[in-house]
Amino acid sequence: MRRSDVPTPSLLVDIDSLDRNIAVMQDGAREMGIALRPHAKAHKCIEIAQRIAAAGAIGVSCATISEAEAMALGGLTGILITGPLNSTNALDRLRRLLLRGADVTVIADHPSSVSQLAAIAAEVGRTLPVFVDVDVGMGRTGCLEIADVVSLAKGIAAAPSLRYAGIQAYWGNLQQVMPFGERSRLVGIQTARVRAVIDALQAANLPPGIVSGGGTGSHRIDAASGLFTEIQPGSYLFMDSCYSKVAISETGNPFMPSLFVAATVVSANSPGRVIVNAGWKAFATDSGTPIALRGTPEGASYRYMGDEHGALDFDGEAPALGATIEFLTSHCDPTVNLYAAYHVVRADEVIDIWLIRARY
Amino acid sequence: MRRSDVPTPSLLVDIDSLDRNIAVMQDGAREMGIALRPHAKAHKCIEIAQRIAAAGAIGVSCATISEAEAMALGGLTGILITGPLNSTNALDRLRRLLLRGADVTVIADHPSSVSQLAAIAAEVGRTLPVFVDVDVGMGRTGCLEIADVVSLAKGIAAAPSLRYAGIQAYWGNLQQVMPFGERSRLVGIQTARVRAVIDALQAANLPPGIVSGGGTGSHRIDAASGLFTEIQPGSYLFMDSCYSKVAISETGNPFMPSLFVAATVVSANSPGRVIVNAGWKAFATDSGTPIALRGTPEGASYRYMGDEHGALDFDGEAPALGATIEFLTSHCDPTVNLYAAYHVVRADEVIDIWLIRARY
Repeated sequence: MRRSDVPTPSLLVDIDSLDRNIAVMQDGAREMGIALRPHAKAHKCIEIAQRIAAAGAIGVSCATISEAEAMALGGLTGILITGPLNSTNALDRLRRLLLRGADVTVIADHPSSVSQLAAIAAEVGRTLPVFVDVDVGMGRTGCLEIADVVSLAKGIAAAPSLRYAGIQAYWGNLQQVMPFGERSRLVGIQTARVRAVIDALQAANLPPGIVSGGGTGSHRIDAASGLFTEIQPGSYLFMDSCYSKVAISETGNPFMPSLFVAATVVSANSPGRVIVNAGWKAFATDSGTPIALRGTPEGASYRYMGDEHGALDFDGEAPALGATIEFLTSHCDPTVNLYAAYHVVRADEVIDIWLIRARY
Repeated sequence: MRRSDVPTPSLLVDIDSLDRNIAVMQDGAREMGIALRPHAKAHKCIEIAQRIAAAGAIGVSCATISEAEAMALGGLTGILITGPLNSTNALDRLRRLLLRGADVTVIADHPSSVSQLAAIAAEVGRTLPVFVDVDVGMGRTGCLEIADVVSLAKGIAAAPSLRYAGIQAYWGNLQQVMPFGERSRLVGIQTARVRAVIDALQAANLPPGIVSGGGTGSHRIDAASGLFTEIQPGSYLFMDSCYSKVAISETGNPFMPSLFVAATVVSANSPGRVIVNAGWKAFATDSGTPIALRGTPEGASYRYMGDEHGALDFDGEAPALGATIEFLTSHCDPTVNLYAAYHVVRADEVIDIWLIRARY
């Protein structure tokens, strides 16, 4: 199939750009001496996780039990579920993952979770590695008080069916702070907190074996601090219009967009405007509007026009009715979650289709 | 399964409220003497379309070729595809739908579409009914000039493999204009345009057999104008927090919310706040934030906290870790598109699971 003949709207991934991003991150981690456990919340796809693992990642981070199930199905190891599991349903699915022998680590931020996890691991006769999740300023999950972190670590270490494996400290709210210097400064404040947490754990004779965290925007700062043993970036795989503007280091952003949404020109009845069949259902809308790239006159700008449509306003010559237009999305992760599969492209050809198995 | 034990995040539909909305709309259409072709873009589900058909609808409107395929698979008839089909892929799938004997009507807003549709219908040896799509002020699809509408109708009528079946005139931009009187006034302006289009078609000896349009917000005004033979509402099935505020007539809104998103409290480490496992991936974000309903302290308000999480801020007693919270979404159609299935609930029980077959 030719790239311009994909059903629309559809999600395209440029395999060479994807592989280049995977290599750039893996090479960088190697140079910085830090392990890489990239986040499947970005891609939700076995084939992509396998490429990342083949390049040298030590494991795969997952935001949901569905992602962990998909990764286990794909034979991935070093699966870390980065969000707390508390529902009856999620805990039962964790139990079944353990029964099947999946190599899973979980996090906890509350004593009741530790009890539940211990019961499940005991029931299936496995030793379940657990990180204590630390709230490093985001106010989302994790323990805020150092005393609570130490207390949870003690609880995990004391449970015969659990293994206290380390801590997780993730500052999602700082990943896209600009300029880079300001991001470094804010990360520095939270890094001091991580250091205090590690000191307290060491004082309690519970030094964390693993310190996991970091995203695409902060990973170089996190690696440089020397506190983290591994990083969990995800968006570097695809880049989007928001992340593309974010300097990853003092020298810029080495990653390139690899993810695109293809749409078709379905109406062309107004001068300077065509209508495409991609609207609120085709793009994540939380971070703005997509940017028209391939197939479009220079300077064309996109406007949402409802669930299934968008308008492309331009000055140059109109694209033809039926033409395929490709867009850079404003936010990759929730856009991926909208589609059943990636159409994998190399230049003008579709060379494969990869299911997005763990989408909602 | 109990309602509170669904995997989260998940989409729930309350079957009694859904059936009540179906009956209220069908009874209203009957009273107003207008046919009902409700829009599958809202639900994308065979089971729901079948319930609507059983209640008396004459057909089902579809925004995409995927929706038409799902509806045909479910044995639905009177399928109208309300958006222009121009891509090679969509036209080929239309061809295959016709080959399989599906009862499909399409729209056109450009002479090149008419030629393509005529060629496909001729190839499969079917007569394909076609509406001319009229732009009634939205600037999206459709012909703006009356001369173009007449010219397209002539082109359709002249094609041996096509049947000129009527016109479509839809004002999506006016559906939620408030107050009701202002909506009536704006619809009135466009209704005059529809009247002029019909007059011109009659003068050209091409009176439209069917005049299709109308949505949940305008359908009573549209029925009262006497110009439309059928209406295409969809959101009345589910209601959402935006539509719930919209008066459907001078006497208010007779429809009730039937669609909810269930999430789990996954972290509770701050006074006055818990974290749920539903964020930008779990809700359509184009029309604001969801509203917490069942399982939550009175007055709790939701904030997005990234792709997989949200915060619930409240004054009262905290819901327990692991508790299920249900939300009213701000926009039903694109929220439905995020999920694989409806968990169908009646009171506290899950009584069925219906696939959302035509999601992206």
